[in-house]
Amino acid sequence: MEEVDHLAHERNKAQFDVESMKIVWAGSRHAYEVSDRIARLVASDPGFRKDDRAMMSRKELFKNTLRKASYAWKRIIELRLSEEEARRLRFYLDEPAYTDLHWGMFIPAIKGQGTEEQQQKWLSLAQKMQIIGCYAQTELGHGSNVQGLETTATFDPKSDEFIIHSPTLTSSKWWPGGLGKASTHAVVYARLITDGREHGVHGFIVQLRSLDDHSPLPGITVGDIGMKFGNGAYNTMDNGVLRFDHVRIPRSQMLMRVSQVTREGKYTQSDVPRQLVYGTMVYVRQTIVQDASCALSRAVCIAVRYSAVRRQFGSQDGGPETQVIDYKTQQSRLFPLLASAYAFRFVGEWLKWLYTDVTQRLQANDFSTLPEAHACTAGLKSLTTTATADGIEECRKLCGGHGYLCSSGLPELFAVYVPACTYEGDNTVLLLQVARFLMKTVSQLGSGKEPVGTTSYMRRVQHLMQCTCDARRAEDWLKPAIILEAFEARSVRLAIACAQNIGESPNPEEGFSEISADLSEAAIAHCQLIVVSKFIEKVQQDILGKGVKEQLHALCNIYALSLLHKHLGEFLSTGCITPKQATLANEQLRSLYTQVRPNAVALVDAFNYTDHYLGSTLGCYDGNVYPKLYEQAWKDPLNDSDVADGYQEYIRPLLKQQLKISRL
Amino acid sequence: MEEVDHLAHERNKAQFDVESMKIVWAGSRHAYEVSDRIARLVASDPGFRKDDRAMMSRKELFKNTLRKASYAWKRIIELRLSEEEARRLRFYLDEPAYTDLHWGMFIPAIKGQGTEEQQQKWLSLAQKMQIIGCYAQTELGHGSNVQGLETTATFDPKSDEFIIHSPTLTSSKWWPGGLGKASTHAVVYARLITDGREHGVHGFIVQLRSLDDHSPLPGITVGDIGMKFGNGAYNTMDNGVLRFDHVRIPRSQMLMRVSQVTREGKYTQSDVPRQLVYGTMVYVRQTIVQDASCALSRAVCIAVRYSAVRRQFGSQDGGPETQVIDYKTQQSRLFPLLASAYAFRFVGEWLKWLYTDVTQRLQANDFSTLPEAHACTAGLKSLTTTATADGIEECRKLCGGHGYLCSSGLPELFAVYVPACTYEGDNTVLLLQVARFLMKTVSQLGSGKEPVGTTSYMRRVQHLMQCTCDARRAEDWLKPAIILEAFEARSVRLAIACAQNIGESPNPEEGFSEISADLSEAAIAHCQLIVVSKFIEKVQQDILGKGVKEQLHALCNIYALSLLHKHLGEFLSTGCITPKQATLANEQLRSLYTQVRPNAVALVDAFNYTDHYLGSTLGCYDGNVYPKLYEQAWKDPLNDSDVADGYQEYIRPLLKQQLKISRL
Repeated sequence: MEEVDHLAHERNKAQFDVESMKIVWAGSRHAYEVSDRIARLVASDPGFRKDDRAMMSRKELFKNTLRKASYAWKRIIELRLSEEEARRLRFYLDEPAYTDLHWGMFIPAIKGQGTEEQQQKWLSLAQKMQIIGCYAQTELGHGSNVQGLETTATFDPKSDEFIIHSPTLTSSKWWPGGLGKASTHAVVYARLITDGREHGVHGFIVQLRSLDDHSPLPGITVGDIGMKFGNGAYNTMDNGVLRFDHVRIPRSQMLMRVSQVTREGKYTQSDVPRQLVYGTMVYVRQTIVQDASCALSRAVCIAVRYSAVRRQFGSQDGGPETQVIDYKTQQSRLFPLLASAYAFRFVGEWLKWLYTDVTQRLQANDFSTLPEAHACTAGLKSLTTTATADGIEECRKLCGGHGYLCSSGLPELFAVYVPACTYEGDNTVLLLQVARFLMKTVSQLGSGKEPVGTTSYMRRVQHLMQCTCDARRAEDWLKPAIILEAFEARSVRLAIACAQNIGESPNPEEGFSEISADLSEAAIAHCQLIVVSKFIEKVQQDILGKGVKEQLHALCNIYALSLLHKHLGEFLSTGCITPKQATLANEQLRSLYTQVRPNAVALVDAFNYTDHYLGSTLGCYDGNVYPKLYEQAWKDPLNDSDVADGYQEYIRPLLKQQLKISRL
Repeated sequence: MEEVDHLAHERNKAQFDVESMKIVWAGSRHAYEVSDRIARLVASDPGFRKDDRAMMSRKELFKNTLRKASYAWKRIIELRLSEEEARRLRFYLDEPAYTDLHWGMFIPAIKGQGTEEQQQKWLSLAQKMQIIGCYAQTELGHGSNVQGLETTATFDPKSDEFIIHSPTLTSSKWWPGGLGKASTHAVVYARLITDGREHGVHGFIVQLRSLDDHSPLPGITVGDIGMKFGNGAYNTMDNGVLRFDHVRIPRSQMLMRVSQVTREGKYTQSDVPRQLVYGTMVYVRQTIVQDASCALSRAVCIAVRYSAVRRQFGSQDGGPETQVIDYKTQQSRLFPLLASAYAFRFVGEWLKWLYTDVTQRLQANDFSTLPEAHACTAGLKSLTTTATADGIEECRKLCGGHGYLCSSGLPELFAVYVPACTYEGDNTVLLLQVARFLMKTVSQLGSGKEPVGTTSYMRRVQHLMQCTCDARRAEDWLKPAIILEAFEARSVRLAIACAQNIGESPNPEEGFSEISADLSEAAIAHCQLIVVSKFIEKVQQDILGKGVKEQLHALCNIYALSLLHKHLGEFLSTGCITPKQATLANEQLRSLYTQVRPNAVALVDAFNYTDHYLGSTLGCYDGNVYPKLYEQAWKDPLNDSDVADGYQEYIRPLLKQQLKISRL
């Protein structure tokens, strides 16, 4: 294939220093260097090839993932990679595997909920991968409502054992990744019963498979729950089903850091604060927000590059047609997503700081900021994952017909991403948690209990309820103060309206549930305000590199003004802005698109993704799209032969009018 | 499996006669009876089984489709099915196949563009399936812009032949369904060149494969373009790539109904009106709108039934948890989609009438309504397919985690549906066509040329520009006149604002392209008005059956008011309604949800879908979801053995710390 950069003319147009932007995106020069080095390492190793995934059968696919997981571990050991490097390697490997759950859920669960002694025993096994573990919480009939789990763990004082049992079909463990085929052990969540009394849901370490031959142990029924959305995608993962028929485990395998069962069967609790659980949730959801910016930026990178390559219509006098990226309809859908990718990146960075802050406070027994931090991360998890899932699909559509081909990378990216909207807290449920927190905050306004953190703006409720927007010219919409106040006013006014609505209801709970759709919208408004304000804060920092700050400023404004356009009804109905000001904002938005246009390709180059990681014929760095599409097509198994398998049995009898006598 | 109707309590709640609604949905008693009979026929025939599609490799999948297509044809002949019945059978077969293009594009192209003589020769072969044909228009580099196609057909007067050639890589035919492996012939679109002059794009019948052994003919390179989005889904179709190396065909194989090339190489045109092409487009797009209501209603049926089965949270004193369908957040996302399914059904029915009307006028040489009918169908194609694609995915999310399993049927439904947003006119391009028509209509207002058909409301432009909405109480939003006027005013005001904006630009073409995002919104507003008004007209007809009309009235209002909520910014910024009226509309919407809630399951029963057609563990008629999910899971190939293939090579060495010496 020729080695020409078909996007060179686009790269030459850029008005900022791409290398500096790469460092801003990565977070630091160090992070950039590690990431860049490991990305190249993975991309250059044929053992990590992934362009054949879409064509594999389920069994081939899964076996291949088992191979890759072992190979990755082998390379990590051989190359003596640091923890940070190993994490990046797994990231660039870009394939869901049982190891994600082993490292990401099984080990943290033991660390968080196990006693010192338990940690010593189990972590040393797990960290060398002498056992493989997963996290068995959700059941066929129970997802979001953890308190509704049905699996039981009944203490038998005679034998000093727990009896783990699945009393109903709906109590079958269902979904845990790595459970179906790979794991030897699981942390199983079950209702603890001792001495005839229930003590709620607790975690237990249960061995599932023999360490000799991997066969399921007696009383254990375990398997894979079947195919999931998409080619490749999450089908590399053995999400599993698990049933227990009175399986006995030693008492010592209940995770006892917070609660204990004594030899006599007495249920006791230690003085370890239960709030620690929330700290973990803040951590996990913070990583999900980081992942959102990765997934969205990847889709945007593909769509931007291909939009610069693809030409359609507008040819004058036989000259080349217009680049698709020059159409305003394309820009008005694509550039807000580009801006969102950056916005989510920066709010994710800030969440990392928030987690550190929360952890330090917890260690000092300061729980005061925890509810706000918890609501904030829950809301941002919901907001960013929903926007990312929708955004990936929008990018696919923006690539026209070719985006529908697996070789574009977008179908798999979408299919592998969408579960993020459901796992670790269903997005709808999370928004209502945020709304509940907002209602509580509103009810305490003026009570002396001041709103903290991301709700601090509510201290200015009186001003925000009656302020009017100052924008008089389109350029006024570039001013951070004007944007911020509009978003703050919208958020506070929606929240107050909901609170009043609930207040009019005889029963507050019923009132809450009656207007829960409005409450979700109020929660979204609040979360969007957080993202906008963190983006503004980022742009106000010192940022090195020619033109970098200007680009970020433009993206920040695009993010805010495109949201304003999308949610215009809320801004207008609450009187935060006038119709005339909305028109001005729209004008400004259009001119920002024009401003970003020459920088678009460079702005996605700054993500520094290798062609291996992108995995897209349409998004390849050099823009040499059509030969790559053409070449990839011929690899389909259907092209193994000129004449299709099935011709003799099914097509020939049809053409020869001999169907009557065929066996079909 | 036990035979209990787990949704009986839901069905007993219904306040209308479901059997009558089935007939309303089907369009007539006759249509209902045919559809019902054929659906059962397909469902009961193991030859049409489809629950194993997600697990098949590409080759197995395609071979299985070849078998089904032949088997279906055999059954159609054996049972002597009428054309209507055969069409229903292919519909319920529910699997994209080369036959779709053979019957739906190849034959119609010859009928529409071939001379009498050509029709006689080719149709008699095609209708007996002695040849298999496809429709080869789009190219690797050219989709929407048909005039940009690069394939050439050069007349050679010496041999009285055309030389079909692919001069560049981007001129490779790309995407045509049925092309890759099945078709023996194609209608190929190419630039006609004769006597050194170009005459634009024309259609040619080209044989691709030998009728003896199906091998590609000399000069023909043909193959499949590779895997597409999703498991099963469109991978049953051999979308193809095709290149010509100076392939010669007789002059008689140019489709010559409209234009001809004489023996001497002279290019001539007959007096057949070119507008006939638009009649065909109206027909094809009308069927796409019908398909949209089918696909959306299917997803909604699954989501509604499962939402009535699934329970989560809200358990009091150990009682059962709350049905998910009782949550307002669920209702506010699900019921507008239920209403949309009905809305699209009725607008599709009306489009069938419109097509008949257009055809009759064309036969009488009356082209006056054609531009309006063309814009209207283009817009409705765009509106309904976009809403359906988004709606299916929304239904999947509304099913929580289990919606991500292939056995839910929703992933495949989504993946197989989304191309409808791109084929037969990219949705974005179509909206701009509508916008162009609207701008023309606006520019002619007051010129004496009155707007016709769906743009008739623009005759009242003066009233609509200054009218104010009369809604004073929530119930006022149930009045058709109030709803209609709000939608008409919004549409006309957006269109006029765009026209003014363009008028201020020194260059109207540049002005149009500068505000094309706003123009798309104006086009959407116009199309939504059409759907709303046709729904209102439907409800105002005589409708038989207890309570049927009341339900349709409620759904019609839900459709309109949920759109009003979603596009509130437009209604407010154009001053069509006030913020207070928006609040009233929202209140009314909530109360409509409450009204529809007890009827929801019966309203999806009225679609009369068999469990076979639905293809969903979550959406099964009897609501016995969990045993079905459980049973389906065990069919995954990974569950063929207790210990996974790959354990010996990859997991065991890991657990036994022997990776160093393993080959991976």
